[in-house]
Amino acid sequence: MFKEVKALLEARQFADLRRLLVEAHPADIAAVFEELEPAMLAQVFRLLPKELAAETFAYLEPDIQQALIESLSNAELRAVLDEMYMDDTVDMVEEMPANVVKRILKVSDPDSRGEINRLLCYADDTAGSIMTTEFIDLKQDMTVRQAFDRIRKVAVDMETIYTCYVINANRVLEGVVTVRELLLSPYDAVIGDLMEDHVISVKTGDDQEQMAAIFQKYDLLSLPVVDSENRLVGIITIDDVVDVIQEENTEDFERMAALSPSEDPYLKTPVWVHAKKRLGWLLVLMFTAAITGGILNQFEDAIAAVPLLVSFIPMLMDTGGNGGSQSATLIIRGMALGEIQLRDFLRVFFKEFRVSMLVGVVLAVLSGLRIWIFYHSVPIALTVGISLVVTVMVAKVIGCMLPMAAKRMGFDPALMASPLITTVVDTCSILVYFWVAGIFLL
Amino acid sequence: MFKEVKALLEARQFADLRRLLVEAHPADIAAVFEELEPAMLAQVFRLLPKELAAETFAYLEPDIQQALIESLSNAELRAVLDEMYMDDTVDMVEEMPANVVKRILKVSDPDSRGEINRLLCYADDTAGSIMTTEFIDLKQDMTVRQAFDRIRKVAVDMETIYTCYVINANRVLEGVVTVRELLLSPYDAVIGDLMEDHVISVKTGDDQEQMAAIFQKYDLLSLPVVDSENRLVGIITIDDVVDVIQEENTEDFERMAALSPSEDPYLKTPVWVHAKKRLGWLLVLMFTAAITGGILNQFEDAIAAVPLLVSFIPMLMDTGGNGGSQSATLIIRGMALGEIQLRDFLRVFFKEFRVSMLVGVVLAVLSGLRIWIFYHSVPIALTVGISLVVTVMVAKVIGCMLPMAAKRMGFDPALMASPLITTVVDTCSILVYFWVAGIFLL
Repeated sequence: MFKEVKALLEARQFADLRRLLVEAHPADIAAVFEELEPAMLAQVFRLLPKELAAETFAYLEPDIQQALIESLSNAELRAVLDEMYMDDTVDMVEEMPANVVKRILKVSDPDSRGEINRLLCYADDTAGSIMTTEFIDLKQDMTVRQAFDRIRKVAVDMETIYTCYVINANRVLEGVVTVRELLLSPYDAVIGDLMEDHVISVKTGDDQEQMAAIFQKYDLLSLPVVDSENRLVGIITIDDVVDVIQEENTEDFERMAALSPSEDPYLKTPVWVHAKKRLGWLLVLMFTAAITGGILNQFEDAIAAVPLLVSFIPMLMDTGGNGGSQSATLIIRGMALGEIQLRDFLRVFFKEFRVSMLVGVVLAVLSGLRIWIFYHSVPIALTVGISLVVTVMVAKVIGCMLPMAAKRMGFDPALMASPLITTVVDTCSILVYFWVAGIFLL
Repeated sequence: MFKEVKALLEARQFADLRRLLVEAHPADIAAVFEELEPAMLAQVFRLLPKELAAETFAYLEPDIQQALIESLSNAELRAVLDEMYMDDTVDMVEEMPANVVKRILKVSDPDSRGEINRLLCYADDTAGSIMTTEFIDLKQDMTVRQAFDRIRKVAVDMETIYTCYVINANRVLEGVVTVRELLLSPYDAVIGDLMEDHVISVKTGDDQEQMAAIFQKYDLLSLPVVDSENRLVGIITIDDVVDVIQEENTEDFERMAALSPSEDPYLKTPVWVHAKKRLGWLLVLMFTAAITGGILNQFEDAIAAVPLLVSFIPMLMDTGGNGGSQSATLIIRGMALGEIQLRDFLRVFFKEFRVSMLVGVVLAVLSGLRIWIFYHSVPIALTVGISLVVTVMVAKVIGCMLPMAAKRMGFDPALMASPLITTVVDTCSILVYFWVAGIFLL
């Protein structure tokens, strides 16, 4: 679509361009904006009808949003902000520099300004920071007919209307009723009789990961957020949860690869920020690997006596590292999905023990055979084989224990993934290797 | 909740137990079933009212579903199947052994039987295999009033009613209209005028990963599935997409940790299946690591001359491996989220080149300083430092190139993650190390 837009822009056929844009989905228009030259942004944006403009704006990346805001007049900016849902506005404000935030607050009407300020106070990654304050609230004594009247009146400004929340005069959450139930009930039925009064809700300060787990467990479309007095203050919708799930997964991927997590897309992150994200763990792991090296150094005499010993070290280290990271990944992922609980510790331990014995023996036999065929040395084959079994078993048992221990102590299990385990396993494998070599070879 | 259920069961207070269960969410009841002894399953299940029983059944793991089916009578099984949504039924049938499938098909009514058989034909992981065939279809010439009448009539059997699809007499998809739009329109408005006629849809054979990306891009609640003639055959709902996203993420986590992916939960997978999942890649990587060892073997003389050289090998190998897996993870994740495209190859390459130079130099300087302080040898400090810079740069450049090359060739980029890169980088780092050592030390 970008090519068409560009061609029409260059030919200055704005009427055709407008026609093209009006028919497109805001997500697709946003993708075009990502590729446009900055100077063209405002020009194309002004072609969009008010509502489509606001929808498109919500789909843009923060850097494009900022560029646009800077080239829009106050009146234009106000029009966009009026049409946007409150949660999208707050998401955007969180990413803007101070001067842009100031301008956004200045052009907003006083009500929205208070709302934005209030939502900005919730800590990052909590339910409060993701919720929207625009939802349909009903009262217990309303009839279905009155409920529909209320929905018709306020639906235009609401992100979702299909789940309605029932509150009392103090805004305490009392029940939930879906539009489906309203549609299936007679007009004079009373909301209080229809509503489900066991409402699953979260508190404003609850972690977003926990909230995403609730959505998945109960297959929800939206989830109410209450304050400490159980008063309804907002709702979270499923489209934001999908984003949270992807964010949390990315965080785990990054932690497991010894990266400091960040939420910025790869290509938009400057080189020095990339370097900073990577250096921390690399430094720690480099110095712990130096300890492994120091231990290796102690076996100088053994190496001098049987120089061939050195050539099996990479295989031992890599296999230990890979075996450990397999177990760590399965456990970390299992805990993230709620399939493995801390109370399963002994079951996991015992399972890894048996799996690693099986895997270790197969690897050792094949590796031993290879060495016997190539080097005709039974002692070396035995040394490498036995070290492999022990290394794989140590790696897998450590690989399953460290993430669970981390979780037990309140850390993110993903921190205890492959790189850290590799370092621990390296040291163990070298100690075992030279100890076994001492028995068979020296 | 399990403890309460168990206590009531043991006290044989079935009326109280029933009261407890009726108030609970089916997802919570399913969690209780996971912990119940198999002999108790049917007894508790029979306490549930028909609709709740079916909902709970859909939340159960396949092994519990199977145990239950085997202890239910044909009439009871038919009652459960009647209440279940078609996509949940098909999901379940896919996991059952042949004799159970036979029984399910036998007790189903002929319509459902045909439907189940048809849905089972779609390949795993395609849109067709995930869709449900129960959706609300409207005609262009209906009024809003007629549309609501139709929704009221069929809504009970539908998984979602909030997005309605407009089809013609040949079932070709013509448009989409939401219940929100219907609610906001006058009763005598005509569907053909209200509907959005640019409908985003997928084909039955489309991959589930692609489908999940569409949901995320357009923030959809449901997505129509059409056949090759654009006839509407089913819809996919957001709750199934969340499962798909988690499945795809798990697959990536497992592939990146050198595991053959599987969809079974960790604790329910037998030991030998775990061993099989892990052995394949471990064997391949063990033998490629043996190549690294063979190369190391070529430098026997250098090691004999300067034995200290051996002790820096673990640090070089680990740092290279960690650095490479950092880059690979960022690129694989970026491509999975659609933030990095194949056409960004040169930008990625250039970025990794600069990042790795910066990271490599910092690591080299600190490492060189440490060696100089501990061993007072400038040539060794230089050798290790220079090798580190080259190793980190090679690692990061390979780490970004391999996943993109895999994608270009139509493989899953996650296959090219840390373990494979570690092996390639190990070999490079050892070659560079001894080459540099040859210049400064030998």
